[in-house]
Amino acid sequence: MMIVRLCLVVLTVFPGAALSQEQPSAEALYIQKGCLGCHGASARGGVGPSLAGTSLPLPAFLAQMRTPRGIMPAFPAEAVSDAEAGRMLGYLRGLPTTQPRLRTDLPSGELSPAGCADCHRRLNPTIVWQYERSAMGRAGTQNPRVVHAQRSMTCADCHGNDHDRIMASKGRVAETVCASCHAEIYKEHVLDAGHSYGPDPGGLGANWERNISVPHYKDMPRKVMEMGCDPCHAQAGATDDQYWSDSLQQYVDGSSLTYRNGCIACHTRHAFSLEEAKKPEACYTCHMGPDHPNYEAYMSSKHGSIYTARGAAWDWNTPMADARYETPTCAYCHMVYVDGNDRRSVSHNMTRKIIWGMGVQPALGQLTDITQTPENQTKRDEMIKVCLVCHAEDKARGYLASADAHKLAGDALVIEARDILKGLYDDGLIRPSHATRSAGLLPGPRFTAIELDQITAQHSPASLYYDVTPIERDYFDMFFFSALKSYKGAFHMSPDYAWWYGYADVLGHLAGIRDEAATIRSADATRTRTLFMLVTGPLMVLAVLGAVWGVRRSMGRA
Amino acid sequence: MMIVRLCLVVLTVFPGAALSQEQPSAEALYIQKGCLGCHGASARGGVGPSLAGTSLPLPAFLAQMRTPRGIMPAFPAEAVSDAEAGRMLGYLRGLPTTQPRLRTDLPSGELSPAGCADCHRRLNPTIVWQYERSAMGRAGTQNPRVVHAQRSMTCADCHGNDHDRIMASKGRVAETVCASCHAEIYKEHVLDAGHSYGPDPGGLGANWERNISVPHYKDMPRKVMEMGCDPCHAQAGATDDQYWSDSLQQYVDGSSLTYRNGCIACHTRHAFSLEEAKKPEACYTCHMGPDHPNYEAYMSSKHGSIYTARGAAWDWNTPMADARYETPTCAYCHMVYVDGNDRRSVSHNMTRKIIWGMGVQPALGQLTDITQTPENQTKRDEMIKVCLVCHAEDKARGYLASADAHKLAGDALVIEARDILKGLYDDGLIRPSHATRSAGLLPGPRFTAIELDQITAQHSPASLYYDVTPIERDYFDMFFFSALKSYKGAFHMSPDYAWWYGYADVLGHLAGIRDEAATIRSADATRTRTLFMLVTGPLMVLAVLGAVWGVRRSMGRA
Amino acid sequence: MMIVRLCLVVLTVFPGAALSQEQPSAEALYIQKGCLGCHGASARGGVGPSLAGTSLPLPAFLAQMRTPRGIMPAFPAEAVSDAEAGRMLGYLRGLPTTQPRLRTDLPSGELSPAGCADCHRRLNPTIVWQYERSAMGRAGTQNPRVVHAQRSMTCADCHGNDHDRIMASKGRVAETVCASCHAEIYKEHVLDAGHSYGPDPGGLGANWERNISVPHYKDMPRKVMEMGCDPCHAQAGATDDQYWSDSLQQYVDGSSLTYRNGCIACHTRHAFSLEEAKKPEACYTCHMGPDHPNYEAYMSSKHGSIYTARGAAWDWNTPMADARYETPTCAYCHMVYVDGNDRRSVSHNMTRKIIWGMGVQPALGQLTDITQTPENQTKRDEMIKVCLVCHAEDKARGYLASADAHKLAGDALVIEARDILKGLYDDGLIRPSHATRSAGLLPGPRFTAIELDQITAQHSPASLYYDVTPIERDYFDMFFFSALKSYKGAFHMSPDYAWWYGYADVLGHLAGIRDEAATIRSADATRTRTLFMLVTGPLMVLAVLGAVWGVRRSMGRA
Repeated sequence: MMIVRLCLVVLTVFPGAALSQEQPSAEALYIQKGCLGCHGASARGGVGPSLAGTSLPLPAFLAQMRTPRGIMPAFPAEAVSDAEAGRMLGYLRGLPTTQPRLRTDLPSGELSPAGCADCHRRLNPTIVWQYERSAMGRAGTQNPRVVHAQRSMTCADCHGNDHDRIMASKGRVAETVCASCHAEIYKEHVLDAGHSYGPDPGGLGANWERNISVPHYKDMPRKVMEMGCDPCHAQAGATDDQYWSDSLQQYVDGSSLTYRNGCIACHTRHAFSLEEAKKPEACYTCHMGPDHPNYEAYMSSKHGSIYTARGAAWDWNTPMADARYETPTCAYCHMVYVDGNDRRSVSHNMTRKIIWGMGVQPALGQLTDITQTPENQTKRDEMIKVCLVCHAEDKARGYLASADAHKLAGDALVIEARDILKGLYDDGLIRPSHATRSAGLLPGPRFTAIELDQITAQHSPASLYYDVTPIERDYFDMFFFSALKSYKGAFHMSPDYAWWYGYADVLGHLAGIRDEAATIRSADATRTRTLFMLVTGPLMVLAVLGAVWGVRRSMGRA
Repeated sequence: MMIVRLCLVVLTVFPGAALSQEQPSAEALYIQKGCLGCHGASARGGVGPSLAGTSLPLPAFLAQMRTPRGIMPAFPAEAVSDAEAGRMLGYLRGLPTTQPRLRTDLPSGELSPAGCADCHRRLNPTIVWQYERSAMGRAGTQNPRVVHAQRSMTCADCHGNDHDRIMASKGRVAETVCASCHAEIYKEHVLDAGHSYGPDPGGLGANWERNISVPHYKDMPRKVMEMGCDPCHAQAGATDDQYWSDSLQQYVDGSSLTYRNGCIACHTRHAFSLEEAKKPEACYTCHMGPDHPNYEAYMSSKHGSIYTARGAAWDWNTPMADARYETPTCAYCHMVYVDGNDRRSVSHNMTRKIIWGMGVQPALGQLTDITQTPENQTKRDEMIKVCLVCHAEDKARGYLASADAHKLAGDALVIEARDILKGLYDDGLIRPSHATRSAGLLPGPRFTAIELDQITAQHSPASLYYDVTPIERDYFDMFFFSALKSYKGAFHMSPDYAWWYGYADVLGHLAGIRDEAATIRSADATRTRTLFMLVTGPLMVLAVLGAVWGVRRSMGRA
Repeated sequence: MMIVRLCLVVLTVFPGAALSQEQPSAEALYIQKGCLGCHGASARGGVGPSLAGTSLPLPAFLAQMRTPRGIMPAFPAEAVSDAEAGRMLGYLRGLPTTQPRLRTDLPSGELSPAGCADCHRRLNPTIVWQYERSAMGRAGTQNPRVVHAQRSMTCADCHGNDHDRIMASKGRVAETVCASCHAEIYKEHVLDAGHSYGPDPGGLGANWERNISVPHYKDMPRKVMEMGCDPCHAQAGATDDQYWSDSLQQYVDGSSLTYRNGCIACHTRHAFSLEEAKKPEACYTCHMGPDHPNYEAYMSSKHGSIYTARGAAWDWNTPMADARYETPTCAYCHMVYVDGNDRRSVSHNMTRKIIWGMGVQPALGQLTDITQTPENQTKRDEMIKVCLVCHAEDKARGYLASADAHKLAGDALVIEARDILKGLYDDGLIRPSHATRSAGLLPGPRFTAIELDQITAQHSPASLYYDVTPIERDYFDMFFFSALKSYKGAFHMSPDYAWWYGYADVLGHLAGIRDEAATIRSADATRTRTLFMLVTGPLMVLAVLGAVWGVRRSMGRA
């Protein structure tokens, strides 16, 4: 009986029974199961079709969930039960089918280009006003370097004049439409991957392709991608025909992004303002944030301070190659090129001078000074030629060499942390990860970590935030946030980003990872020890009882 | 004897004796006990009276501490001993009573309004210079839409001409004074709660009322509230007579804030610049930060980038309804209304188009798409009419619907974390909280969490930072910082706030909370196991001794 | 045998064997061992000599590593083995010796000052253009308050005309060169430590001296210091002759910084723009970030908002004492002084009105209202005289007194955390630190912590990020980041920095530190308990066996 009581105590030592929860509403189920990611909050559709007011019978609804056609992921019964599916279907059937609309008196078919402004001046006054004052809107004032098919442009030259198609495509103007006049820029920017983010890693393709095929992208709610990742990555080719179905009049690449930026990301429609496109703010929306605070670092540098204090007085309409800026802008360093005769020109290939790229990891996983390759020496020289507009060569070259050292010093700490994590993986103390994802280890192809014994510890920015152990998250924050701030801070001349937000935080993460690893190993030891006691404790009681029994028996015999 | 030694070892297993500290100085006591929160650093008063150079005898001093009159909280002997109180009183008695003053030659009584500028032009040159150039200061140039009681205004029209009262009230100009000319704006802004923050939660009243009656506000040092919370919340009614005592010439609502903003929060005295009030910077000081980075999100959006790059060239004196901005400002989206004939007008009711409010929790604690109610459909339409100034309806409506989905996707993760915490509360593994406060659980009235068995797990922004367990803090940071950044980022079109600072961080917090909960449960199991060993170990020794004694006795008997 | 098996199990309870790692490359070794910190990424030198293509024999290389001459730290065999040193030397020998150079046709010797612009207009067009338009470049337009040795200046007046020396010194213009015309400013700024950061702490000297002699500075990679700490600290005396060797034409203070700012930190060469030097952006690059977000707090205050909205319209060339700003800038509050006749003047002593200094700790480690000393009362009055330009005295004085209380309220929480850490140090539960560094405890000389029994728990910003326990890091973040944000936020009138980024985060850190301390004490108890079981378990088994054996023996005897 005492043994039974002991077992009961032992059992209570391992709690963790499932929590009883109130049953969520059908609407809450629809949201929690992630359906709204593709089908939208009101189920009016997104990358998935509208489900509002659906007349789909339950068997067909279930069939699509269990063995889906198209790009929809499967929802097995363990994820969504038949009963839950039934409740969700009931909810969806009751939703209003029609999208509300303020204007229903829409024109249809092909219209005269001369009449566009008549309606839209009243409906959307600012865009008509902007276009009429823009270089494109004023006949004969356009860029003299562009070979114009015509001297006077209308709305229809870019949008066409079939109002139904314009509505269906959400006013789409593909980058190739811009290219019909600006062919050279399209080549520099799109075809030459001139606005791609560094060298192509692991065969993921350029720019937009890389965004939508990054590991785990497809696991994220598409509507979240639409708000978060996609708007910035939809540049330099995202409007290309390979992603577009002309018959469906929609993008068919699985992104929820129906409306894409292309050239207007910087040259905002319908003003196409040169001032706006040239100022650092054109870069701000995308080149900011914890993983690449280029804008923040630039603005807090001496360069940025001068721009803020004095930039309003500069002439932003002069071609940049001839401009007199008192300090460089983002575009000036990354888009101006100087030839052997000190003549400056501008290219929309902005990555041709970049050596370390995104800098997301030690040069492809190794601690090596990649600046010394002939190709990268050429890139460095191209950058220094721009520095010379204001600086002496020794100073410019010396500064950039120190920034190289700063980056590598931070990378060495990342490698130290990587080795600590590898030790934990190898000893089975953490798994990559709880389930199938992981903060990963470098090296290996970028965004992909080393092969472990039976599993690959891999990561990508889209996967790193769920289902990882805290030490993996710490490691991710170390190399993806702190080390990048350190690197971007140094190269954009911001002491605070180079040190406090950067290198100091890399050091802090390393101290944390060291400590976490020690705790994991020590906790494992404690666990082994206490399990050992749990087993030996009752055994000792049995031994005592057995010994007493043996003595008593031998006494009985005696 | 071995048993005694065992007990000694067991005792040392539970350390935690109080640390002996050097006795703090009387001044340090005054600060540490929080007296300075109400009575000020130099004890010259705040919401509490001045105590510097007090002649109060010790018994009266003690009586007020133990059973205070007025709003002062009680300090029982456990919090402040008699000896400590005595030392503090000695310190206070020695403090200088008089506030130093640069100017002592102050005029007194009623003065001629014509003479104000004569003195103040020398003493405070900028404000006289500003007022004389302002619309209010220049007779006949005022806003034609305002019904003026007079065409020429003096300082006394707002401040009165009794210099003693002006000094005593710190130059107070109540919003109702502004309303004597700007009645319609006062109605929109104050009476209609047009600058309140979203729908009234849990009967806490509007705006300022809500600030000073929020749970735990009274527990915080009032001087900290004066620097932190109160300056922003002192809008839209904070200067109203209900908080003011005309006989005492001071505010009597328990806030330490003697000087309040009212209308001048945006229309800064004494320039009353339209440019300043209309620019996003007017909103910056309050609508920023970890819990609602509206300004940061807007500025890093395409909208904000265009404003930064081009806004200096816009005409800020044109009435906003007629203005030609190339991108909307905060005020444009939230204050412009468009009627059925595409005519635009401006209202100081800025919350009439807002659906999700502060967004502090899933729609009142539930996962539900609240945008579908008729009231909210009307609000959405009102907002879309403003979008139409530059955008097509489908694009605007589609974007906002995606932002709805983004918000709900983040809220679903908050709910998952809430259920994990509820499990820990229900199993007694964390208490809400260590003592009486908690990071709380949603739903329930806003800022108030669910009822647990014997205690309410509630939270408020004013209480969440002390005396909570780390997992509760993590949860608070998740729903109050990350989820709000995610939501505000999406609706203000900032990809980085929607994703990295927002949704990705919500995911990260959820992973952390999952892991912390597992650790708490596992640590509890280890604790139970080792306690079990501590109890059973000696029992086993006793069992052995007993068995041996029994055997010996039976042997003796044998 | 069972005992042996038990011992084996016990042994496996304490894992932690060293991880086998692949051998890093010689280049990776060079980086990981920190050599690049002084010798550069490509080993072309920094504060240490160039090692690229070295012909040093191995014994000499090893000798320098083991018992270095000069400022180089020693690398004993435990840090770098002979074999590793040999591999590194091989790597260094193979590196290219010559720095690439775009321009090799450099002039030599003494040149005519009249000819500088001829070459540099082509090579570095912006600086020539800037200088020719600057006040210094235009004869007769200079500052009338400066006694000019001459009315017309050339490049050579500052740089000399020996091109070799200009190249060797990287164009150095010491602050004393500026002082030859601007002697009063040099006195205010450098000699009077007028741009030092607060009162001299612990005899570390002023400004630059303090940077390079701060504890642990020498342990950090110098190239990281060059990117991070040094650029901001190289003001107000850093170019002085005490750090410079005229014969070597280089700085010899052990910093990696070959190029220093001096006056041009604010008065950027070669425009010397007054607008730029007066705007808050001149202060931004240095006075920002987690430890002193002065710029961020100012910009998010009402003052900053008005500057952003309206500053473009102000006249920045009027001397600041006579200027009409609608709101103060950084320079206005810290550099304008008002005399008894309300006359304003400007001084380059910017710290003369500052009371709390950097505010890095409770007033020199004590909770005391230091504003009440006569010296500080004078400082406060000097500041209030500037406030009076726009504000009434009561309001200004009251606000600053509340900010004092706010600072002390935060400091009281820091002291509470300090006492918790002291308890853990005293009980041997954490050591300061894992090895020899620590997040330290206040008070004591600034940046230096209390003496413990056998070791000093000290800290400095340069050491705090490695090899510290998490609770020490938490403490550092509390007092160095959160408490400073709270303080700087209050005094620069930013509610969000005073509360959310400041005081609320101080509270959060305190809650975390309380909890971490409890966990450390509880984990220690668990460890003691399980060790106790590990020892007593086998003892009990032996006791049982002994008892049984005793019984059996007595039975045998019986």
